Amino acid sequence: MSILIKGVTLDGHKKDIFIRDNLIQKIDDSINLSANVQISGDYKAAIPSFINGHTHAAMTLLRGYADDMHLQDWLEKKIWVAEAHMTEEDIYCGARLACLEMIKTGTTFFNDMYWFWKGTARAVQEMGIRAAISAVFIDFFDKKKAKEQIEINMKLFEESRNFGDRVTFTLGPHAIYTVSEGSLKWAADFARDHGLLIHVHLSETQEEVENCIRKQGMRPAEYLGKIGFLGPNVIACHGVWLSHKEILLLKKHGVKVVHNPISNMKLAVGKAFPYERLKTAGVTISLGTDGCSSNNNLDMLENMKFASLLQKYHHKDTTALPAREAFQMATINGAKAFGLNCGEVKEGALADLALIDLQRPELTPHFDLYSDLVYSGNGGCVDTVICDGKVLMANRRVENEETILEEARRCAFDLIKRASHSNG
Amino acid sequence: MSILIKGVTLDGHKKDIFIRDNLIQKIDDSINLSANVQISGDYKAAIPSFINGHTHAAMTLLRGYADDMHLQDWLEKKIWVAEAHMTEEDIYCGARLACLEMIKTGTTFFNDMYWFWKGTARAVQEMGIRAAISAVFIDFFDKKKAKEQIEINMKLFEESRNFGDRVTFTLGPHAIYTVSEGSLKWAADFARDHGLLIHVHLSETQEEVENCIRKQGMRPAEYLGKIGFLGPNVIACHGVWLSHKEILLLKKHGVKVVHNPISNMKLAVGKAFPYERLKTAGVTISLGTDGCSSNNNLDMLENMKFASLLQKYHHKDTTALPAREAFQMATINGAKAFGLNCGEVKEGALADLALIDLQRPELTPHFDLYSDLVYSGNGGCVDTVICDGKVLMANRRVENEETILEEARRCAFDLIKRASHSNG
Repeated sequence: MSILIKGVTLDGHKKDIFIRDNLIQKIDDSINLSANVQISGDYKAAIPSFINGHTHAAMTLLRGYADDMHLQDWLEKKIWVAEAHMTEEDIYCGARLACLEMIKTGTTFFNDMYWFWKGTARAVQEMGIRAAISAVFIDFFDKKKAKEQIEINMKLFEESRNFGDRVTFTLGPHAIYTVSEGSLKWAADFARDHGLLIHVHLSETQEEVENCIRKQGMRPAEYLGKIGFLGPNVIACHGVWLSHKEILLLKKHGVKVVHNPISNMKLAVGKAFPYERLKTAGVTISLGTDGCSSNNNLDMLENMKFASLLQKYHHKDTTALPAREAFQMATINGAKAFGLNCGEVKEGALADLALIDLQRPELTPHFDLYSDLVYSGNGGCVDTVICDGKVLMANRRVENEETILEEARRCAFDLIKRASHSNG
Repeated sequence: MSILIKGVTLDGHKKDIFIRDNLIQKIDDSINLSANVQISGDYKAAIPSFINGHTHAAMTLLRGYADDMHLQDWLEKKIWVAEAHMTEEDIYCGARLACLEMIKTGTTFFNDMYWFWKGTARAVQEMGIRAAISAVFIDFFDKKKAKEQIEINMKLFEESRNFGDRVTFTLGPHAIYTVSEGSLKWAADFARDHGLLIHVHLSETQEEVENCIRKQGMRPAEYLGKIGFLGPNVIACHGVWLSHKEILLLKKHGVKVVHNPISNMKLAVGKAFPYERLKTAGVTISLGTDGCSSNNNLDMLENMKFASLLQKYHHKDTTALPAREAFQMATINGAKAFGLNCGEVKEGALADLALIDLQRPELTPHFDLYSDLVYSGNGGCVDTVICDGKVLMANRRVENEETILEEARRCAFDLIKRASHSNG
């Protein structure tokens, strides 16, 4: 299988890009090789496709179901009630919708934590993108639950081999306020023994920090450091309330941090992500959308704009988090965080890339690609998406779109019906 | 001329909408009238098209030309230098690009302040949308300049009658720090005598407030009140730093306020718009994008999301500025502010409306139209736009798109070339 992209704009120059199997084999001014697929690069720019560092994909099913509510009401009366009724089939439908939305907005990798691991894994396998998927690991400090969760995760780890190269099994201890110390330690050990990533929520709210100080006499990252949880395989999501000392601790252990600006603003976490401090410390910072009930979409370009503008606004500094850095958070930094050979369009890298349609009013006149994409564009500017050397979207068309939408709609309304009946 | 929209979702119900000339004549479960144009409403929702309360349309030419810079550098080294080289033809090309972008994102009215009034007016006339257009009135406290500006404005007012019903001449005294008291008073009087709107920047930065206190011994809105400038015809843009006392003063005079959340965040104005206080006081609040060098697009749906999330973030309150209110700011409130018989899809209103394509992943499953549009959608969800009873976009296609983009590109690059030469 080979793809030849002719005359596309790459870093400001017209180039041909030749893809063989799942790698970018050659980039040159003019390549004359025959290919199975040839794509015109006229009025298009080639960019690395996006890496969504934190989401709960199947929550697309709950998009727009409950918003503008107080956090506890929202969780207790809406989200948790609906989640309690989800089946693996629901998760599959929701995750497939999420994959479709991600492909349509230029994302080809996501880091997931949700229920019914296999539902999400099936969707990813089928839709052609990549994901690191973890099952939500919550034991609520209950030994029996902890044992169950450990067994489930060990079993899933074994089974995950059946889902192909694009699906990576990851451990998902939810957060320090939902998972016991024993389970956190188990996750750290199991991940170390098997070379797994750990996906965890960290320092999202002030309440989390205050409760941790009360219970453990120290802040969340310090606590995780003390119990031997931290390491370069840990993907810590949010990190809004990290202290400077905690940032240095995360750096020391090589922990990767994922910023979720839209979710942080929508859920009113009360503080801006300490971007500059983390960057100065040398921590790898990537970008996530969070789930669709707290965003409510999976558009990484929109997310970059929010990331940049939130820093500018908060620090009263128009130069904070410039466009290019926001773009890097969503591409090369994500690749570093997840150990992926992508995030840049270069020879030898995985053929995970997107072509931007430059023939759009919001990208005109087009002085600067990064400014245009981050401040003016959105996911709708993506014309073509290639992942693992296969064309997943061409001219904004993805296979079976209508069916995926229809089935997700049916699933979601049926789920809410079940949840409402049990609730009323 | 008549249009029949069959089976479209309106406020959650399937309806037919019949448009004759420039009005919505009838909305019913089933309408069997013949029409010049029939549009299928399958998988579509009808909404009022958007009203952009504050912009500088032709600044599309400077989109992405300079970002992430300190404010003074940005203005002095980039924006003002480029603006000094603009011609009426540039403004026409830039405003036409802006109109195209607005149509493609569902906006059919904008309130503009920029150079070369006629360039913008020609573009609006040609592109089929509506605008209130003011020439930038700046005298820098110079009597000669003031006299010139007054003459220019009187002449433009006379000539504006030639630009048809969709173009409204408006006065544009820029701000209290660029316009003398004499000119502000002239604008207030001339507007009162001729039934004109006044478009002014107010209380955008802390510096503006502090300088006013130093110079006038009072805050900006108080100063404008004192000199008799305030009235129901005043459209005050930004209002970020308004005090509670100023808010009550604006309410007393019926002043309309336009919030520009993205511009405020990108330009780091340092405070969140006092939405709740203005709303409680009963002030009509509409929504604007500001110009494309401080946003950098004209997408009102994206703007609604920023408006809502900025309030939630700032006030640490997930219930602040709910989706529906953000939508109203951009529709019915805008109509009220500008005295337009639109902003709602109802019988007897102007036929200014948009059809949303519901067959999109980010609008699926579709529990709530307002949540979906504001939190998940963007301008790309707009499929069809009708203004003044004419179809300006169908299936996302606008006439002459490629030509408009090409000419704007040529104009913009040529402008920057001229500006760079003179600068270097």
